[in-house]
Formats: sequence, C-alpha cells, structure tokens
Amino acid sequence: MTLKELGRYAARGVSAKKQDVHSAIDKLDAGIFPGAFCKVTPDYLTGSAKLCNITHSDGSGTKSILAYLHYKETGDASVFRGIAIDSIVMNLDDLLCVGAIERILISNTINRNPHNVSGAVLKELIEGTEDFLQTLRDAGIHIHSGGGETADVPDITGTLTVDSCATVIMKRKEVINGNDLVPGLAIIGLSSYGKAAWESSLNSGIGSNGLTSARHDLLSPYYRGKYPETYSKETDPSLIYCGTYKLSDALPNSLQTIGEALLSPTRTYAPLIARILHDDPRKIKGLIHCSGSGQTKCLRFGMGVHFVKNNLLPIPPLFIEIQKRSGTTWEEMYRVYNMGHRMEIYCKPNHTDTLISHAKQSGIDAQVIGYTETSKKDDLANHLSLTHAGKVLEYTR
Amino acid sequence: MTLKELGRYAARGVSAKKQDVHSAIDKLDAGIFPGAFCKVTPDYLTGSAKLCNITHSDGSGTKSILAYLHYKETGDASVFRGIAIDSIVMNLDDLLCVGAIERILISNTINRNPHNVSGAVLKELIEGTEDFLQTLRDAGIHIHSGGGETADVPDITGTLTVDSCATVIMKRKEVINGNDLVPGLAIIGLSSYGKAAWESSLNSGIGSNGLTSARHDLLSPYYRGKYPETYSKETDPSLIYCGTYKLSDALPNSLQTIGEALLSPTRTYAPLIARILHDDPRKIKGLIHCSGSGQTKCLRFGMGVHFVKNNLLPIPPLFIEIQKRSGTTWEEMYRVYNMGHRMEIYCKPNHTDTLISHAKQSGIDAQVIGYTETSKKDDLANHLSLTHAGKVLEYTR
Repeated sequence: MTLKELGRYAARGVSAKKQDVHSAIDKLDAGIFPGAFCKVTPDYLTGSAKLCNITHSDGSGTKSILAYLHYKETGDASVFRGIAIDSIVMNLDDLLCVGAIERILISNTINRNPHNVSGAVLKELIEGTEDFLQTLRDAGIHIHSGGGETADVPDITGTLTVDSCATVIMKRKEVINGNDLVPGLAIIGLSSYGKAAWESSLNSGIGSNGLTSARHDLLSPYYRGKYPETYSKETDPSLIYCGTYKLSDALPNSLQTIGEALLSPTRTYAPLIARILHDDPRKIKGLIHCSGSGQTKCLRFGMGVHFVKNNLLPIPPLFIEIQKRSGTTWEEMYRVYNMGHRMEIYCKPNHTDTLISHAKQSGIDAQVIGYTETSKKDDLANHLSLTHAGKVLEYTR
Repeated sequence: MTLKELGRYAARGVSAKKQDVHSAIDKLDAGIFPGAFCKVTPDYLTGSAKLCNITHSDGSGTKSILAYLHYKETGDASVFRGIAIDSIVMNLDDLLCVGAIERILISNTINRNPHNVSGAVLKELIEGTEDFLQTLRDAGIHIHSGGGETADVPDITGTLTVDSCATVIMKRKEVINGNDLVPGLAIIGLSSYGKAAWESSLNSGIGSNGLTSARHDLLSPYYRGKYPETYSKETDPSLIYCGTYKLSDALPNSLQTIGEALLSPTRTYAPLIARILHDDPRKIKGLIHCSGSGQTKCLRFGMGVHFVKNNLLPIPPLFIEIQKRSGTTWEEMYRVYNMGHRMEIYCKPNHTDTLISHAKQSGIDAQVIGYTETSKKDDLANHLSLTHAGKVLEYTR
C-alpha cells in the first residue's frame, strides 16, 4: 500500500481500526452481554447470579510523550498530573457506557525508563491520581485506588507508559447491554471542549486518542533532533515531528498554546452521566465513548443501524489546525479524532430536551447531532453517514 | 558512584531497591493491613465491613524482550505463551502471600510496537492467557479473565510490555496480615526449579525478576548488533549484551538451552498454597514471594525480626552461570535473583514436616532454609543473615 492508501495514522504504526488486535481476540468469549460497550463477565468476584463484573484496562497511550517533552523542556513534572487523569478517564468513561457508575476500584501501572523519567514524575503521577479520584468523589462518583506498580524497564521504553485497570461489580439488570441501540433514536453529542463544572481549566477536546499523529503533525523537527527517545525508528522519517510548532507556540483561534491544547486532560463525563442515570436510567438507550476510531466508534454497536450524524458540534481549533498542517483527509480525521464530542447519548427523540438541559447545567455543550434509522445495506450491516461542511462522508466497519 | 559501587543491576537503570518508587508512594495510604504483603483496601467493591479488596498490578517486565529475541530468530511466536504466564503469576503469587486464593479476576494490558510485534504474537499472548487460566482452574484455583487492552505505541516501545491486574474480594479475618511474622518461626523455602505437578516442562527457577541483567550478562554482542530496539541507549555499552551465549547454546550442567532456561515460565505456587490454606490456614504465619529484591524481600515484612537463612536449597545452574559470566558479587546475586526458592512459608517449627510433605506431593522441592529470631539491632530493625558457601552475608533494608 502507498502512504496515501495506508493513511498517515496507520503509516506511523498506529491503526485506528486495530484489525490484527480484533482478529486475535475474535475467538475469545465475548462475555454475557456481547453487544455491550465493555466486556461484561459473570460475577466471578462474589458468585452471585444477579450480578456481573467488569474489569477494564486502558491508558494514556502516547500522550505521555507530550508530557515528557514539556517536562524535559521546562523541568515542570506537574504536567504528568494530567496524564494520570487521562489514564483513569480512558477507563472510567468506557465503564459509563455500560452504566457502571458505582463502587469503582482502580489500579495503575507505570512502565518507565528511569534514566529519563525521574522520581519527581512518579510523585506527580501518583499524587495526581489521588487528587483526581478525590475530585471525582467530590462530584459523587465512588471511585478509589487500590495501589499499583511502577516498573523500571529502560530496555523496553525510552520514556514511559501510564495504564490503569478499573474493576466494578454491578446488577445484571442495570447493564446498558446494547440491545436498545436500535433505529429510531436521537443522538445527543456531549462536547469534548470548553470547561465542565468539575474541570479547573479550559479543555481543548483532544482526549487520549490520535495523539501519535497530532504530536508529529503539529510539532517541529526541533523535537526530532533533541528527543530521539520519543519516536519509532521504524517509521518513515518524513512522518516524524513534521510540523512547525513548538509546544509554547500559540494555537490559532484559541486561548491555549499548542502544548496546553495537546496536553489538555481527557474530560470525564462521569458526574453528568451518573446524574442522568440516577434521574431515570430508562431514558438512556445507548452510550458511545468516541475514543479509538473517533466518530466511527458507533459502527461496532447496535445491529442493523444506519447512524446519521448531520448536525455536529463545531470543530475545536486544535482539530482544525491538525487537519490544516497535516493535510489529513476529513474522512480520516473523523476516524482518528473525536472532532468535538467524545460521548454520545442515544435516546428517544422526546427526551432530548431534558438530557441536553442536564448537560448544560454541567457546563457541557450538547445538541442533537443526528439520529439512527434502519440500515440501508442489503445485509443490514451498520453504516454511518456523517455530514462535514455540507458533504456527506460514508463509513462502514 | 562508580559502576562497582552502583552495582551492575542499578547501572542498567533497574534498581532492585526501587528507592525513588518507594519514596514516591511513601505518603500514600498503606491500606487497612499495612504489614501485609499486598496493599489491602476496605471493600470498595461491595461495601461490606467484613470484607476487603485487593487490586494488584504487575507484569512480565523485560522478560518479554527474551521472548522477542527468540521469536525474531526462529519465527516461533508460541514462546509468548510463557510471557502470558509470567505476567499472571507475578500477580497471583503476590496475592497468595495475603491468603487470597479464591475468585480472582484478571485483566491484561499489552503495549506493543506493531512494526516489530505481529498479530501472531498477540494471538499467542491472548490464547496463552486463556490456556493458563484453564490449567489453574483445573488445579483448583478459581481465576478468570475479564478481558484486556492492546495498545499500539511504537513511539514508546521498540518491543512490548505485558502487564496484568488481578482483583479479589476476601474476608478481612482471613487476610495474612503480617502480624504473625515474628521471631521464633521456621522458614521453609519452596524451590523455584524442577517440575511441579501442574508444569509441563522443566523450570530453570528464573521467575520474572533480574531478567535485564541476566539477559545482558549471558547473551552475546550478536544481539547488540542485530536488535538495537531491545536495549536502552542510555546504558553504558559495556553492559549491553556483554556475555558469550546465543539463546540456542547449552546451559552448562543443565538439560536446557540458555534460551529455554531464561524463558522458563515463572512457577506459580498457587495450587500448593491453596491446598495448605484449605487444610489449616493457622499453620501459615507468613508467606513471602521472593520476587523483586530476591532473597532480601523478607526485610520489608514483620517487625523486629532477624531473618537467618543458613540452609538454602542448591543454587540452580542458571544463577551459577550468571554469576560466573558477570562476576556479580554473591551479595548482589541474592539481592536480584531468587537463587533457588521463590516462595517462603513462615511457620511454627513443629509444623515444618507436614508443610514440606505437602510441597513434595506437588513435585516441589522444599526444606527448612532458616528461622527467625529477635532483631539484634539496637533499634530492632529487621535484618538478614544469609549463609553462602560457608560465609555469612549480612543485609539490612
């Protein structure tokens, strides 16, 4: 395949589609609710037939490298507090999508190169985790840390990975199992940008996905020369730090610098979703966390659904700048980035006003961004029609 | 510090003492049983005052690089099945030490460089996990997988990390909390080598600790030239693949090759410890998993204890060869490697015969390797006297 056919994202060794991962796990038991957003297992932990378990792992991915660059340039290790948040939210907001909002237990794993990553970084990661969990508890989410592991593996990494595992027990009857994600629903998009009630600074909307491409497409060759430990030797050099910016440069049409925007901690929607579920869980027919594979994530859920997204929220300045600098097609941009909303609520059309009002009370912009209808494919496969700048982009899995 | 003062292990960026990790976590809440081997928290998962939770993370560390070398040299990805075992056992055998042997839920995280690590490797890791969990269940250990995450992070690693998180709920009154690890006990060592009843091939005893040093000290510069993605650019080149062996060479005084010995999957003691605990939990006063920091791990547990290890099991050929080739002091060898037993049972002297007989029925060599007495230090700090070749080595924390 040529670079163009492969896509810039895949050419860097990062597949938004993750084909070989999916083919490796396809033979595995899909759990007791195969249509749910997370794998749900029987209640191995206590053995109750009425309960079920979710143990979920994810992390901050290559966003840790951005924090590393900032830390090396400025000496400011506190930037890693945001990475601690990213790692937790990548788990927490997946859990939300099955309705798991109570009694969450977290464990963290840090794999670091101790030559490059100091004890001061560990301190910020560990304290940042504790502080963020307290913020969540203050906002009504019962989440606690059970500890974690820090491994010194300089032969494996030049920098570090920060991963978390979240475990929860819930009632089987309360699981959002995917069966209600059907044709005939409205889709509400919850903005990934701005400032939610529980956030202390402006959020660029970036989240924790697509950061490999965002970093290389925006940042300048200055970083290529100075930090060889931060990129893959196997990737085409023309795709490594091929942008024009330094972290301290201003992001056009924004109050943030490039570094602040790229390092903006991933928003959690947990306090908002918890409030909605406590109010009336029946209003929610589906929740999709637009993480890996961005706006096309929905294609994996529901059956026989045509997703129509024809009224998206405004695209935040960071994504516009990434597209402009990289020349990435808009079609690929929506496959890699959330592009403005990272959480979708699927509901009956007559419930949208109440749900949007909940979001706005939390300081989160929200609107009906589209709807579901019956698949127009002969085999009733899920597909997505997404309107960008007046043109409809078509996606299948 | 000079290389000699620092120690070969620390000079490679891998600290057996993990000082800066401990200093970063020292401020954290130590859980409800601060003297226990694992952090134990209140029962956040179900909210019962009689129960508690453990969520524990660890992984295969740099042992994955050895599997990578074997895989690249031979094309045989099945070697990664052993890495899946290593990652699970590093958690499971820590859990044993608090008495957690029931209803364990596992999640896995793989961070890989997809340029170098194929889907075939993922398949073996994932299927190897499932097969090993089935082996454990067949041996009476109720352990299940709840899924996991595979992240493509080529800018972070040239190879891969394989980590796991294990979660369990147990009765507070059944936790081995460390309070009974006192002077006046016998110490039984359970061999790390040989072939346990649930193992399918000979075990070298290596486990999953000290593999960075073992790999570099034994393997030849052939690997330095051919696989630059497998070592840290920050480490003194004289410490990188500075041995003489290829993986396919024979290990002296052994039936195994160097590769087979280094890649020998970490033994779990779970079926044996479960049998002993089911038989009579009161016989066990303490369990120490001699993982990171090897034979000095015990120093972190119990209070006012002088550990005397004066009758150790024979040192397996692999450790003898590592010492011989590297010139590492015996004092450091015991700080880095398990040297022959990876699990210690602390019990009353009159119970040793029964416990040793349980071990031998499981195909695990075992003997009384020493005892505990009151600390001889003025401040009653824990210390260890370990007899090697007729000479007593002294250790403090």
